[in-house]
Amino acid sequence: MFYEGAVQDLIDELGRLPGVGPKSAQRIAFHILQVDQADAARLADAITRVKATIRFCARCFNISEQELCRICRDPRRDPSQLCVVEEPRDLIAIERTREYRGAYHVLGGAISPIDGVGPDDLHVQELIRRLDEQGEVEVILAMNPNIEGEATASYLSRLLGPLEGVSVTRLASGLPVGGDLDYADEVTLARSFSGRRAVE
Amino acid sequence: MFYEGAVQDLIDELGRLPGVGPKSAQRIAFHILQVDQADAARLADAITRVKATIRFCARCFNISEQELCRICRDPRRDPSQLCVVEEPRDLIAIERTREYRGAYHVLGGAISPIDGVGPDDLHVQELIRRLDEQGEVEVILAMNPNIEGEATASYLSRLLGPLEGVSVTRLASGLPVGGDLDYADEVTLARSFSGRRAVE
Repeated sequence: MFYEGAVQDLIDELGRLPGVGPKSAQRIAFHILQVDQADAARLADAITRVKATIRFCARCFNISEQELCRICRDPRRDPSQLCVVEEPRDLIAIERTREYRGAYHVLGGAISPIDGVGPDDLHVQELIRRLDEQGEVEVILAMNPNIEGEATASYLSRLLGPLEGVSVTRLASGLPVGGDLDYADEVTLARSFSGRRAVE
Repeated sequence: MFYEGAVQDLIDELGRLPGVGPKSAQRIAFHILQVDQADAARLADAITRVKATIRFCARCFNISEQELCRICRDPRRDPSQLCVVEEPRDLIAIERTREYRGAYHVLGGAISPIDGVGPDDLHVQELIRRLDEQGEVEVILAMNPNIEGEATASYLSRLLGPLEGVSVTRLASGLPVGGDLDYADEVTLARSFSGRRAVE
């Protein structure tokens, strides 16, 4: 507690944000102290506004300003493809590719026994309900390629595979484009071997 | 613009903070979306409050909630020592050592021709006025050990050295405690040679 009250309070609050350590928190706090009143007000306002206006889509659990999110409201999206992701930011990463025109379902996390996150903590029941109401559908599992993501994907593929009219696929694992074969880790390289495809 | 309005606004505002890139801004924005309303409100409030309550000390230009800062108000601080620093955070770094019991003067930056910062942009005139009103005083120059800090220190030592009753000192440069001589850069090692002291 070397700072006057309001400064210390701000440093403490900033230090709670992910990826912001004590030094960054101090640096950001001094930045805020030095910028115009209007700039600081815009930041404070953006925080307040995001909490007031943003909720989760009632259908896919993407972030949304309305009952249904932009993608669920879009009639041009193909409902016969349903991409399942962990978090809204994964959805955005896929949208950025501009390759996918189907629907999404956001789980809100991944299965992680260490963190005490089980299937009941994710939007899995809602996913099954959506599949019930839907005809033929390809479920594309797009979890992160880490332990929690793998566990979630294998849980979901076991759960959804037997459902009628549902086919389950997974995103390909392999060498990242632009990467060096030499620098790829063993697991990735092994995956790119087992997932090799016939040259067209 | 893949995000709904309020989320994108928040990401944009966060991305303007120092050391926060687009990815961090997105991560922090999602964190804010997920925390309790009360936590987000505390952060927004801390930003607003710091701008409303914090100003600069009328004497030393440290950050302060009152006309004079905590250190200038403290009668136990020794006014015959005056440590000159660039920024309030440097003052805090020195306070953390709990070794120094004198007063401070915050310049508000360092001389940097490249950034267009000259002596007139710093609180140099105010420093000279303080020294005029003071009797015998040791001015301790505690600028950062980089080009701008060195330039500022040599400017100030030329300016203040001739003043009556003023002695000017500088913080020692040399090997950081816990560091490896082997890893020290040439300039630091040369400084620690030229600044060597008789063993007591």
